[in-house]
Amino acid sequence: MIGADAPGAGTHAIHARDGRARAGRLHTAHGAFDTPMFMPVATAATVKGLTPRQLRDDVGAQILLANTYHLALRPGAEAVERLGGLHRFMSWDGPILTDSGGFQVFSLASLRKVTDDGVEFRSHLDGAKLMFTPERVIGIQGKLGVDIAMVLDECVAADAPRAVAERAAWRSLDWARRCTEVERPSEQLLFGIVQGGMYADIRASHAAALVDLDFPGYAVGGLSVGEERSVMIELARESIEPLPLDRPRYLMGVGLPEDLIRFVGMGYDMFDCVLPTRNGRNGMLFTSQGRLNLRLARHAEADRPPDPECGCYTCRHFSLAYLRHLATTREMLGPQLASLHNLHFYLDLMKQMRAAIEDGRFSAWSRSRLSKLEEGSEP
Amino acid sequence: MIGADAPGAGTHAIHARDGRARAGRLHTAHGAFDTPMFMPVATAATVKGLTPRQLRDDVGAQILLANTYHLALRPGAEAVERLGGLHRFMSWDGPILTDSGGFQVFSLASLRKVTDDGVEFRSHLDGAKLMFTPERVIGIQGKLGVDIAMVLDECVAADAPRAVAERAAWRSLDWARRCTEVERPSEQLLFGIVQGGMYADIRASHAAALVDLDFPGYAVGGLSVGEERSVMIELARESIEPLPLDRPRYLMGVGLPEDLIRFVGMGYDMFDCVLPTRNGRNGMLFTSQGRLNLRLARHAEADRPPDPECGCYTCRHFSLAYLRHLATTREMLGPQLASLHNLHFYLDLMKQMRAAIEDGRFSAWSRSRLSKLEEGSEP
Repeated sequence: MIGADAPGAGTHAIHARDGRARAGRLHTAHGAFDTPMFMPVATAATVKGLTPRQLRDDVGAQILLANTYHLALRPGAEAVERLGGLHRFMSWDGPILTDSGGFQVFSLASLRKVTDDGVEFRSHLDGAKLMFTPERVIGIQGKLGVDIAMVLDECVAADAPRAVAERAAWRSLDWARRCTEVERPSEQLLFGIVQGGMYADIRASHAAALVDLDFPGYAVGGLSVGEERSVMIELARESIEPLPLDRPRYLMGVGLPEDLIRFVGMGYDMFDCVLPTRNGRNGMLFTSQGRLNLRLARHAEADRPPDPECGCYTCRHFSLAYLRHLATTREMLGPQLASLHNLHFYLDLMKQMRAAIEDGRFSAWSRSRLSKLEEGSEP
Repeated sequence: MIGADAPGAGTHAIHARDGRARAGRLHTAHGAFDTPMFMPVATAATVKGLTPRQLRDDVGAQILLANTYHLALRPGAEAVERLGGLHRFMSWDGPILTDSGGFQVFSLASLRKVTDDGVEFRSHLDGAKLMFTPERVIGIQGKLGVDIAMVLDECVAADAPRAVAERAAWRSLDWARRCTEVERPSEQLLFGIVQGGMYADIRASHAAALVDLDFPGYAVGGLSVGEERSVMIELARESIEPLPLDRPRYLMGVGLPEDLIRFVGMGYDMFDCVLPTRNGRNGMLFTSQGRLNLRLARHAEADRPPDPECGCYTCRHFSLAYLRHLATTREMLGPQLASLHNLHFYLDLMKQMRAAIEDGRFSAWSRSRLSKLEEGSEP
């Protein structure tokens, strides 16, 4: 995908700044993507309900996120490698990022036993006993052949005591260091992950220590796990502070459209979240006028586009009444069209943010946009 | 859709004959479609898992079939009418045929009470008491604004005694006559339906009596309801005999690819069946080499197209191993890609049949094709 003159993988060319917000382009082995950017979630090597062609042409996706934990269980990293790698397996030739599997081990798997060596757990599918070490998750991501790999980290609950959060953070730092020492495919980028639970000072010192390891990009993890919204915002702010300005900064698992606007304003460049697809499957649309609940009877004869300001395939071809009909009858096409719209909405929001940053009007744009988003949402 | 010089709705221009098989083009208010043709089933105003754009561009669908019974229950014919008719509602601007709802009343609804007036029943959704009369189902199909409407008919079980089948056939004939007397949208075609249970002589005389009512097209109903395959073939042969050669003949609810080939050879022009989509959702692919079961472990590392002779989106972009992964993980994209392939397979089969008829080699083509289809199927 990269021509002879293209910048090397890892180059984050920032061409505009507006306050702390920045607009740029991150180069990878499978092409570059614009930042700030939202990554649709393709957990098991598929964004639920959408073809790769729809993701590229209708949604405008530039990079996808897949899950190491899920792919390691099914079909297995070795199988994907024998089938030509993840890009070929899922027929997506743009950039792919995988998380390290840490978050899923701590949220899905059972009978976890964490030691300094790694984490032993049982598969949530069949109870099989498995072990993730820093070396093993880098090995898996290498076999998958992804463009951006993540270090293994230990995630703690939102209510973890200080001592637990602290021990996990320093163990994660050691794991991060071990990850850098494993052989990886050339041009694969490895991002470090800031942890530290709900403790701002642990996060700040953990982030500073990670920076000493000189990663080509940094993620902030362990947020949006049940804490108060104001707490999340404050911790995201503390976590980004020590991270170098020239590197891409990725806020993991966040969030609502209003969150994306706020965190781009703090200088974050990358996001992922299941909300646009998961909520789409449950009949919820993100629109320029706020959130719509497709199951409400009031939409039964709404002969207008779901979002009148949206130019996506769904909004150009179907009425709100038709989407409501699909939700009511539980037809598969409903989740598909809603997910397509919601992802288009997210990707379009990122595009608008990049344009506002480039024009030096991000602050005014975000104020007007936030008030509109919070105006008319339905239960 | 129809230009000033286009033939009027109902014109069935047959341009090639080969034995009893024929190739032609049936004109409707929303454009013409080639015959013989297979109609994907869009029960509740959606072909499960596929967008109208995929149906047109990837599948090559030219006409869709929707269900009067399902649409009358949800969202209701009046709602669809207020929303601009079925074409606009589901965003399909090609021809649409609806069945009369008779088959669903007799297969899905409960507490049926049939009188000469019509059939009273309870909705399978909420138990609401409803009544279908010939006049009412024509009224519904008029409100939906479809291109081809079907008369209300009384369907009997495969094991119905002769007297029951006979009484139902003559009642259906009276209902068919009443249907012709109801006002309908101009250019909407109304097809009669041959019934008569498993009794060839009843079917033959019922068909002959229907022909006296001079419908622009005829369907053969009540087959593929559990009878032996050889019985179905014989009854389909007896039922078509009295039908005029110049009119389109539609065999309802049939069937497997090998059935389509056989019945095109008898002179049938139109088909519908849920198999390509329903089996696709269940992980079964129709291929040029026979049927594939995506759940079989033997496909886990099959790094080749599901059907090497197929040019559909699914076969051009994904391996059999990937489709197997989607089936194993129960990902939505699995049913979507399998349904797309299966419908493409059916539509492509019809295209091959038309070409073979036009070239006068239908008989040889069908022999070689049938033996290939029956060769390699999986459990």
